[in-house]
Amino acid sequence: MIIGIFGAQGQMGKVLTELYGEERPEIQILAMGRNHQELPPAGPHPHVVIDFSHKDALESVLSLCRGNQIPLVLATTGYDAADKAKIEKASQEIPIFQSANLSLGVHVLKILAREAARLLGDSADIEIIEKHHNRKKDAPSGTALLLLDAVTKEGEPHKTVHGREGQSLREKGEIGIHAVRGGTLVGEHTLLFALESESLELTHRGESKRLFAKGAMKAADYIITQAPGLYGMDDLFGGGKIHE
Amino acid sequence: MIIGIFGAQGQMGKVLTELYGEERPEIQILAMGRNHQELPPAGPHPHVVIDFSHKDALESVLSLCRGNQIPLVLATTGYDAADKAKIEKASQEIPIFQSANLSLGVHVLKILAREAARLLGDSADIEIIEKHHNRKKDAPSGTALLLLDAVTKEGEPHKTVHGREGQSLREKGEIGIHAVRGGTLVGEHTLLFALESESLELTHRGESKRLFAKGAMKAADYIITQAPGLYGMDDLFGGGKIHE
Amino acid sequence: MIIGIFGAQGQMGKVLTELYGEERPEIQILAMGRNHQELPPAGPHPHVVIDFSHKDALESVLSLCRGNQIPLVLATTGYDAADKAKIEKASQEIPIFQSANLSLGVHVLKILAREAARLLGDSADIEIIEKHHNRKKDAPSGTALLLLDAVTKEGEPHKTVHGREGQSLREKGEIGIHAVRGGTLVGEHTLLFALESESLELTHRGESKRLFAKGAMKAADYIITQAPGLYGMDDLFGGGKIHE
Amino acid sequence: MIIGIFGAQGQMGKVLTELYGEERPEIQILAMGRNHQELPPAGPHPHVVIDFSHKDALESVLSLCRGNQIPLVLATTGYDAADKAKIEKASQEIPIFQSANLSLGVHVLKILAREAARLLGDSADIEIIEKHHNRKKDAPSGTALLLLDAVTKEGEPHKTVHGREGQSLREKGEIGIHAVRGGTLVGEHTLLFALESESLELTHRGESKRLFAKGAMKAADYIITQAPGLYGMDDLFGGGKIHE
Repeated sequence: MIIGIFGAQGQMGKVLTELYGEERPEIQILAMGRNHQELPPAGPHPHVVIDFSHKDALESVLSLCRGNQIPLVLATTGYDAADKAKIEKASQEIPIFQSANLSLGVHVLKILAREAARLLGDSADIEIIEKHHNRKKDAPSGTALLLLDAVTKEGEPHKTVHGREGQSLREKGEIGIHAVRGGTLVGEHTLLFALESESLELTHRGESKRLFAKGAMKAADYIITQAPGLYGMDDLFGGGKIHE
Repeated sequence: MIIGIFGAQGQMGKVLTELYGEERPEIQILAMGRNHQELPPAGPHPHVVIDFSHKDALESVLSLCRGNQIPLVLATTGYDAADKAKIEKASQEIPIFQSANLSLGVHVLKILAREAARLLGDSADIEIIEKHHNRKKDAPSGTALLLLDAVTKEGEPHKTVHGREGQSLREKGEIGIHAVRGGTLVGEHTLLFALESESLELTHRGESKRLFAKGAMKAADYIITQAPGLYGMDDLFGGGKIHE
Repeated sequence: MIIGIFGAQGQMGKVLTELYGEERPEIQILAMGRNHQELPPAGPHPHVVIDFSHKDALESVLSLCRGNQIPLVLATTGYDAADKAKIEKASQEIPIFQSANLSLGVHVLKILAREAARLLGDSADIEIIEKHHNRKKDAPSGTALLLLDAVTKEGEPHKTVHGREGQSLREKGEIGIHAVRGGTLVGEHTLLFALESESLELTHRGESKRLFAKGAMKAADYIITQAPGLYGMDDLFGGGKIHE
Repeated sequence: MIIGIFGAQGQMGKVLTELYGEERPEIQILAMGRNHQELPPAGPHPHVVIDFSHKDALESVLSLCRGNQIPLVLATTGYDAADKAKIEKASQEIPIFQSANLSLGVHVLKILAREAARLLGDSADIEIIEKHHNRKKDAPSGTALLLLDAVTKEGEPHKTVHGREGQSLREKGEIGIHAVRGGTLVGEHTLLFALESESLELTHRGESKRLFAKGAMKAADYIITQAPGLYGMDDLFGGGKIHE
């Protein structure tokens, strides 16, 4: 089997390549870049492509995979509405797996957060705190936004606040999102549900980038056998028991 | 309405009496003790009894409530199997509400813990850390045991470890329970789910004893209208949405 | 002994009055308000005044204490530079104790934070996270600013960021301050020192308002015997061993 | 320069070898094992030896370094009193660096913990919570014991408790040590100081084994220029400012 990796020279691409080398040495890795918009006519064709490059490469990646009918795993974050529409459209022709966070733990946190928000309703004031290394450019993290969606009622708009300064009272229903940056912190997300005289905190802590490489590997195994369509973590874990 | 409180002179009894005074001044409080095994023939009869005394008072409390057909809220912890059988039996004659922890947040934590354990299955190593003030006598807390039940598969025995010292490897499936004691800590419970390269922590933090008094108040309101039977937090919150 | 309390009807004033009643029943409490700018000629004169009212009452409080030569404990927060100048000036005539946080634990945290910042120097990225109840109006808390001072080198300007959103890289030396608000959270302050491949977190958690009332009581005992001047927590704890 | 690594094939040895390769490619690494008790007469002689093997190799390591007058960094844990005596004795002939934890952050935590214990004295109940991966054999960790020393008064015996179960009241001065084990947790140590109505928590979190390799590298640079004697982290950081 041949797996194409967009962004193979980036930090995550290297970790993924290494992980395949360790755990699945029989698989051939094909490093791909933006200039590889067309596959060489005679060369090996990847059976699945994993994109760990950058959202700006989206069009190149989609175009190459559609043109060659290759299933695709999008492991990049930061897509806007227009990007999402393009992904949606491409998924009518090829199977695409897309998730802002490929970790099992974050997926479970999302399910728990949704359940807690449903059970607690208006009794809880919700705040999100996320911590990442000092070279992360975007704030808040894609995962924080994914968790924000999980605790927001279907169809309701978000009332988010990014940092507080000065005199201002917290409004009912507002959700504070706090992006902490420093050192080499791998990635930590906390959902706080503050009630009367008590509080709940749900925290996920990533330990290394291996985590996301492992998730991408699982997603690749999954997407390769699917029909065209758009898939995510809920599909991967089947809604039911995640592990036997 | 008249509410009888067993243990009205204890710490929790005082908080409860105060809370009724503040929020429901129309309610009359009847302080009860072990020597009140029989109600005065001419005096006021409580419409519901809340027990915040001690597990050793169980028989007195049950006997009085059964004899006078008074609905009962048991807000005391530490019952053993024999005690539980007595409660079960008495509940055939009167409605009894019993919970090792009357807080809404702990109840939600229990539901989330059960869900996390189900979703993660054998991928997760589970540990429980609980923190309480330095005058707490029993370890682990009743709430820690309640959470232990929540993460244990129906019918499976617990493999718990209380502290680790010396050379010994963690066994697959064992659950470490750690009872931290110090100062005036109100009550904190953390469930750790440690996975490969990531972890989840679910923490509940109580802020004051008011929390439990409030829960007892809600339970009293609920039990007063029920038929004989044994009720708990799941009944109080109806299985569905806890708050509208 | 007579103790005058400005803001005796406020939340903290009530807790303080209650605490004196419990622990020092021999002390007489004199509730004071803004309209008490002059003490009654014939009435009892307080031996010390504790101000738990609001920063806007500063002038009334200072004027009354200077006029009557009464030692003063300022337990209110939010003073600006002009206020501080007034306090400084008044302290040439009467002994004044002033602190943005009267808790022993916060004082120790401040000392530890200063030491950690000194030891780690530029190796550490520092961020401050503070959590308070949802009715707190100002952000960040006075205590967060006190901790910010502790980790900033003498004479250097603060480079603070209050929340992050959008594309922007953390600058070397910048300190993010994150004000989390929700429920009835009593008050939690965390200093994060993020290094390469490791991090340190120093957290203080208040459990109840009693904490601050206790600190005010200790400060009143202390200030009553001092000469005119401005005093703070460092004086109260003598720089050396806080407790024998 | 040539650096000999005992335990070069172990987990830490591999990380250290990799780190030298990345950051100091000019240095030659000599993998050493227990059977290398004698250096080949004609081969290259290491200028310093780092031991990341196992405490059982102590005698081999000491004998080789003494015999060849090679400065030594002992980065292994679990030494008992007899082992320590041997190290002490060998250090009369060669410079030896020994620390139960080579991380900068843990070293600073130790200094802060000592200071907090000194400042708070008997006001605080102290507990230690440490978390490590599920394959760690010893409990508590060497670092937890190092922190225990830091918060214990010179010359006083430890009153430690490893887990609590059943009916038993916390004794004044006792220190609970809680060894949490699960997943691939890298290493987290928390010191809790619980006071009246408030608490302080000091937490160190390691992010990867690189951390310890980096510390070993620094220790090797340091020990190579020292006279015979026993050195530790306090020497490495000179007691004063750790970083300019």
